[in-house]
Amino acid sequence: MSARRVKGEVRIVGSGLLGASIGLGLRQGGVDVALHDASPTALSLAVDYGAGRPAAEGDDPALVVVAVPPDLTARVVAEELAAHPAALVVDVASVKAAPLAELAAAAGADLARYIGTHPLAGRERGGAISARADLFVGRPWVITAREGADPARLGLVEDLVLDLGAVPVEMSPEEHDRSVALTSHVPQVVASLLAKRLIGAPDSAVALAGQGLRDTVRIASSSPELWVQILEANAPAVAEVLAGFRGDLDALLALLADPGAAGSRRGIAEALEAGNRGVARIPGKHGQNRRFSQVVVMVDDRPGELARLLSEVGQIGVNLEDLRLEHSPGAPIGLAELSVLPEAEPGLIADLESRGWRIAGAWA
Amino acid sequence: MSARRVKGEVRIVGSGLLGASIGLGLRQGGVDVALHDASPTALSLAVDYGAGRPAAEGDDPALVVVAVPPDLTARVVAEELAAHPAALVVDVASVKAAPLAELAAAAGADLARYIGTHPLAGRERGGAISARADLFVGRPWVITAREGADPARLGLVEDLVLDLGAVPVEMSPEEHDRSVALTSHVPQVVASLLAKRLIGAPDSAVALAGQGLRDTVRIASSSPELWVQILEANAPAVAEVLAGFRGDLDALLALLADPGAAGSRRGIAEALEAGNRGVARIPGKHGQNRRFSQVVVMVDDRPGELARLLSEVGQIGVNLEDLRLEHSPGAPIGLAELSVLPEAEPGLIADLESRGWRIAGAWA
Repeated sequence: MSARRVKGEVRIVGSGLLGASIGLGLRQGGVDVALHDASPTALSLAVDYGAGRPAAEGDDPALVVVAVPPDLTARVVAEELAAHPAALVVDVASVKAAPLAELAAAAGADLARYIGTHPLAGRERGGAISARADLFVGRPWVITAREGADPARLGLVEDLVLDLGAVPVEMSPEEHDRSVALTSHVPQVVASLLAKRLIGAPDSAVALAGQGLRDTVRIASSSPELWVQILEANAPAVAEVLAGFRGDLDALLALLADPGAAGSRRGIAEALEAGNRGVARIPGKHGQNRRFSQVVVMVDDRPGELARLLSEVGQIGVNLEDLRLEHSPGAPIGLAELSVLPEAEPGLIADLESRGWRIAGAWA
Repeated sequence: MSARRVKGEVRIVGSGLLGASIGLGLRQGGVDVALHDASPTALSLAVDYGAGRPAAEGDDPALVVVAVPPDLTARVVAEELAAHPAALVVDVASVKAAPLAELAAAAGADLARYIGTHPLAGRERGGAISARADLFVGRPWVITAREGADPARLGLVEDLVLDLGAVPVEMSPEEHDRSVALTSHVPQVVASLLAKRLIGAPDSAVALAGQGLRDTVRIASSSPELWVQILEANAPAVAEVLAGFRGDLDALLALLADPGAAGSRRGIAEALEAGNRGVARIPGKHGQNRRFSQVVVMVDDRPGELARLLSEVGQIGVNLEDLRLEHSPGAPIGLAELSVLPEAEPGLIADLESRGWRIAGAWA
């Protein structure tokens, strides 16, 4: 966070995951952050975490960030616009058209001083306790400025986004809502409904769950309180994507009803192949398409062995891009999956093997 | 792999991911493994990987493992039963009732020497190149022995499963197929159909994809060739689970059509909450319900820093259950997420802080 851009005082209303993470990130750059939350407990937790100081009488923020649940967003934005007549007010709610419409319908809100935004970052666990200063690093942050928006105000929002390490993306509120219906809201619904199937299943069936099921339903553990607001606020866009999904599902069910019929096998294969193409459209980790090579090293389950491995990787002079440890119960060894630049892979394997490490596998 | 149980020679037919992984695991225990594959290239790759030697004239296996695609399984099992009149023949296909029915319908197959099995282990990437000796460690391995099966033969299968570190689970073929429809086949279909929605989307929308979408559709990159066989062979059980899913989807679509109506919000919340309960039924990582505490430590992006952290964790005397490194592009720090036993967490945090490490977060 070198060369911070945001000047002056920033007021953050709502000290949950997003508000506290924004506060932590700005504080790292030395920005004066004044926090406010309707819950004194949530506020003091975020203050303890270093996300800012409690807001006080006489504060004069240049920028107000509203980070409250979606169904409160329009009301709190209106209050903040009225309370701070010189400030730019932005929100970070995950739906954009509905709060704007609600705000436009409210009498007297100075809409020229409001810009709706949405950082595409989050975690399953909410609250200041899960906040991270780097939550937004490398993530898109949508800015839904209206046509003719004051460039100085737009610049202030971009400063905020850039200071937090995120990537500003301009979209209309409608384009935003259609996009997140596809990439976030419908996946949430699908994961929740799939997970619901597990409720009545025998223990012996659920015990066969593997990583595929785990990943597919992971987000089904998200907060119903938050998601009912999001789905309600973005219902038309969500329903449109879901209707397309249901059409495909009906077609597949028809094929499965008579899998031996002429064309059934081809139809099923085409649906699966379309899934291949769809998933291939998602940009790689960190939003890059660059792929790393993985080298899997067997590590004895003794204290210090993993440290010795990593220390030797450092001596070999290879930089780790990512690292994953897999440890099976009762197994005398663990597996350390090292992600490295593809060009570093062959040399790393040779050097590790010459040092006596056993390589369990490697792939690009 | 101490005290191996499998005696004598094992013949493995099919040297893809499962066949080669079984071979690797058995070779670690010193078992004589004879590999056969219809593809000479696949065979020599698996041999190069150390999964066994090429099968030869005069081989006399006590156990034959058929690890070929599901639609070839019954035919190859019948061939192997005929070719090796004293051997027990097992298969590892991911559907069990259909191959058994096909085999029972074939004239002359000595079914008393056949036992259908299914190791619940796999990877998105197939082939011997992705094989791992420990692929099955800690995973369930379903054995579908018929009533009255010869205990000696059953014992031989269990020896195989235990030698590979897996957990034997007895089920009928029908119970197996219903269970995997729920935990594996339907998730595959749902992930594929969800991923298919991305095909026509604008780049700007797909660019907003986050980890939630990535996880939800990850298995959509699986092989259509393999999966069309699985879905065809298990179509009735898959269709039954999918029909329940579609019923829930239809109900949710009706609620989204009028989200402001009385009861809509409650209905949506109940669907999301049911997803919470469903996902909570999945046993924890490694098949245990034990949850670890996570401690997230900030690590400077310098060579050797991570090794220093792990070395100090070892000095503190805490055993790492799991480790995850998150590294954001351009960020001067990475985050190391240490999984430890809950009782070790407070002491670890205090000790690390006293050594100057910065803790970014912790949770149970």
